[in-house]
Amino acid sequence: MIGVSNRHVHLTEMDFKKLFGTDSLEVLREIRQPEQFASTSYVTLETEKGRIEHVRVMGPCREYTQVEISKTDAYQLGLNPPICMSGQLEESSPITILGPKGTLHLQKGCILADRHIHLLPKQAELYGLTGLEKVDVLLSGPKGGILFDVKLRISENSYFELHLDTDDANAHMVKSGDFARILTKKEKESEYK
Amino acid sequence: MIGVSNRHVHLTEMDFKKLFGTDSLEVLREIRQPEQFASTSYVTLETEKGRIEHVRVMGPCREYTQVEISKTDAYQLGLNPPICMSGQLEESSPITILGPKGTLHLQKGCILADRHIHLLPKQAELYGLTGLEKVDVLLSGPKGGILFDVKLRISENSYFELHLDTDDANAHMVKSGDFARILTKKEKESEYK
Repeated sequence: MIGVSNRHVHLTEMDFKKLFGTDSLEVLREIRQPEQFASTSYVTLETEKGRIEHVRVMGPCREYTQVEISKTDAYQLGLNPPICMSGQLEESSPITILGPKGTLHLQKGCILADRHIHLLPKQAELYGLTGLEKVDVLLSGPKGGILFDVKLRISENSYFELHLDTDDANAHMVKSGDFARILTKKEKESEYK
Repeated sequence: MIGVSNRHVHLTEMDFKKLFGTDSLEVLREIRQPEQFASTSYVTLETEKGRIEHVRVMGPCREYTQVEISKTDAYQLGLNPPICMSGQLEESSPITILGPKGTLHLQKGCILADRHIHLLPKQAELYGLTGLEKVDVLLSGPKGGILFDVKLRISENSYFELHLDTDDANAHMVKSGDFARILTKKEKESEYK
């Protein structure tokens, strides 16, 4: 199943308090990944070149503060962030986050989230994906195609789901709840449609 | 070679005059397709749900008025336009175009431009593409993949070029001037990377 991630931020407890003046990050709705939720809180992203309002804070709070945007957003903000997996912020871009009660000027923190698949160890085994770091994925529909090198994130605390950003989803005209297919080596070698 | 099309409009001479109060559509720069150019004129797109400013008018004027946007733009405007080739406006969406001297309320005219390849008949022959309507295209890079069913537009008045919209380009992290590869049937059957 596909889950499309719009631009969003993850905050540490300290940064959340600085932006919102409170400790209570409230649940708007749970998402399919266990224990993760869309909160009722929004921030504004700002750079010298641009500004994006109404950006969702995801919960719960994390050990790091991270802003995940699409390449389309990056053009709007005049940034060139690296494609990263969550938490890999060494090369990430500077950005300012505005909340109702405070502002964060981050030297690092903004990334393009790399597309990835969440799955359980037993699912990796079942589907012959044990030991693989990445796979190719087939998207069907009027603007179908194949995404190369989609990372696998195998953990005991996950729901089997392909996470794409809005650029990936809009380019291929897929949406949350649609299905994609992981291509096996055999399928790749014979026929890929 | 890849050419990325940002959102833009084509206007009839009559509609241009209505929006700008003049007959003279001026060349800002030529694009690679023969006789086509980016003009110095901009319009604003508007619907009940949203508004996008600074949208380029392409020249020269055409026999039809047409607004080409990405799926990302469509969400911003609250529209659900069909994926069309240029000029196929039967099912296209209503939209309002604002110019400095006038306004056009179109009942039809807004589309998602389908990705396509411009090429000469002799190039189609050279590359074994004669008689084909569409091909699959390989995009390389950090977010590489394959685009299925890319239409061929074979004409004597064309430059060999793959036209993508900003969603396609941003999802796969390619830009104007990058190169893509048309996959032959043989390549598809053996190995596609």
